[in-house]
Amino acid sequence: MDFSSKLLENAVYEMSQLPGIGKRTALRLVLHLLKQPTEQTQRLSGALETLRSTVKFCTSCHNISDVELCEICANPKRDESLVCVVEDIRDVMAIENTGQFKGLYHVLGGKISPMEGVGPQDLTIQSLVNKAKEGKIKELIFALSSTMEGDTTNFYIYKQLDGLEISTSTIARGIAVGDELEYADEITLGRSIVNRIPFEGSLKAN
Amino acid sequence: MDFSSKLLENAVYEMSQLPGIGKRTALRLVLHLLKQPTEQTQRLSGALETLRSTVKFCTSCHNISDVELCEICANPKRDESLVCVVEDIRDVMAIENTGQFKGLYHVLGGKISPMEGVGPQDLTIQSLVNKAKEGKIKELIFALSSTMEGDTTNFYIYKQLDGLEISTSTIARGIAVGDELEYADEITLGRSIVNRIPFEGSLKAN
Repeated sequence: MDFSSKLLENAVYEMSQLPGIGKRTALRLVLHLLKQPTEQTQRLSGALETLRSTVKFCTSCHNISDVELCEICANPKRDESLVCVVEDIRDVMAIENTGQFKGLYHVLGGKISPMEGVGPQDLTIQSLVNKAKEGKIKELIFALSSTMEGDTTNFYIYKQLDGLEISTSTIARGIAVGDELEYADEITLGRSIVNRIPFEGSLKAN
Repeated sequence: MDFSSKLLENAVYEMSQLPGIGKRTALRLVLHLLKQPTEQTQRLSGALETLRSTVKFCTSCHNISDVELCEICANPKRDESLVCVVEDIRDVMAIENTGQFKGLYHVLGGKISPMEGVGPQDLTIQSLVNKAKEGKIKELIFALSSTMEGDTTNFYIYKQLDGLEISTSTIARGIAVGDELEYADEITLGRSIVNRIPFEGSLKAN
């Protein structure tokens, strides 16, 4: 693309560094900002810069938080013996939205992925193991995505917990509520048969 | 969405004010920035703010430019008697990319659209009429999008030029090069038959 302005080109370039934003979309977004009052651009850039420079992570669960200990970890009504291990804060938000989980979280910050150069030391695994050794955790729920990287990460953490009296579980995989069997992939359908649950138990869940 | 951090919520909100960016995408973009070095966020917000606060428009064609008179208008090799009227600077970039146009541009900044509250005075139409009255322009090419708003704008400008010796044309509408006839819509196909061009002329264009 040939830009008539270096400033415009630079803004479009920086915008297009965001994931999923190509040059054309970046140009559309930047031109939109130019049509809006100056304040909108200032609010956007200010909000991003403030967040980036002052962002804090909860010292216990590593969720993004404005304070040392996040609201969830600081809530005495939550069950600290039950910890759900997730990849990032979007998973925390998704599970919180269900209103079905009353324990605490542990945000890993990613998955072990040799392909992308992410090793155990790049994640908050050591901090999880340290928490586990304190003895308060009774059950860990692995809620990572069901990929090879997710499984590898689960297994790595599982091995680190060797010798500790902590039960581990993973979230159930199966046919989504409301989905038709014929459209489900075989692996999911197969798992949902192998991991079938007592019918009486399934009634309780609703 | 329930955010664990007000700063995060604010950044996501501002990001989601951009067109086509929903809350979920905004969150993904902001979390991406948090994983990158602080410098990337600073470069992005800096580039946007600098552009927004110092943006200049060419005094002649109203294209975005870092200087008073843009490169195209200042280029003595361009034919100033031929002016192509476009909606916004993306159209200038698209036409420049073809390398087929050697005249100048006039960027209107939009189309007349009563539905969206855009009237002639919101566009750079008066400036175009003033230029036309100076007598240098011999032909105006309307290259607005082929919608009711585009046609209205073309016609409004055409009426304003009444009494001036300026020929007007619109870009050709027809079947795209490489497209199959059977998939073209009837209106386009109909126009391309009505506005057929001499076969010998079509050979020259390639």
